[in-house]
Amino acid sequence: MKLSEAQIEESLSRLTDWRREADWLIRDLAFENFKQAMAFVNRVADEAEAMDHHPDILIHGWNKVRLSVMTHSVGGLTGKDFELARRINGLV
Amino acid sequence: MKLSEAQIEESLSRLTDWRREADWLIRDLAFENFKQAMAFVNRVADEAEAMDHHPDILIHGWNKVRLSVMTHSVGGLTGKDFELARRINGLV
Repeated sequence: MKLSEAQIEESLSRLTDWRREADWLIRDLAFENFKQAMAFVNRVADEAEAMDHHPDILIHGWNKVRLSVMTHSVGGLTGKDFELARRINGLV
Repeated sequence: MKLSEAQIEESLSRLTDWRREADWLIRDLAFENFKQAMAFVNRVADEAEAMDHHPDILIHGWNKVRLSVMTHSVGGLTGKDFELARRINGLV
């Protein structure tokens, strides 16, 4: 179920390192090199498969990763998006 | 060395499935599922490491991959970009 504006604000206040852009949660990360960026992306991919909830993942500039999370079926943010974001924070 | 417009056109005419957007070569792919998309991305990553030439990789919509190739050090397309694109075509 799509979260209300108030619920999004409240959830976001308890989530470090992510920002909101329109209907998305976004986190940008930088790594020492491409190999480490890919290793992180694979950990994120395993978690995404476990949750059956898949972020968009951009690997760019050989060492940077941008993660974008939303729930396409509702066209906005749900509790599952925040849960995925929290789990990803545990993988960094 | 940055390729000339004529060299880019000629190289592009011999490269299937890629298009040019400004200073980039772009290829879009779709897979059966997220796991297969990630498996492909890891093959691309291994080839990129072997060539020490890294494309931007976007995994989006749980089964789609967009690859963007350019040579940052020259701010445009080089022979290495076309070589990477050809090798990636062999991984699909």
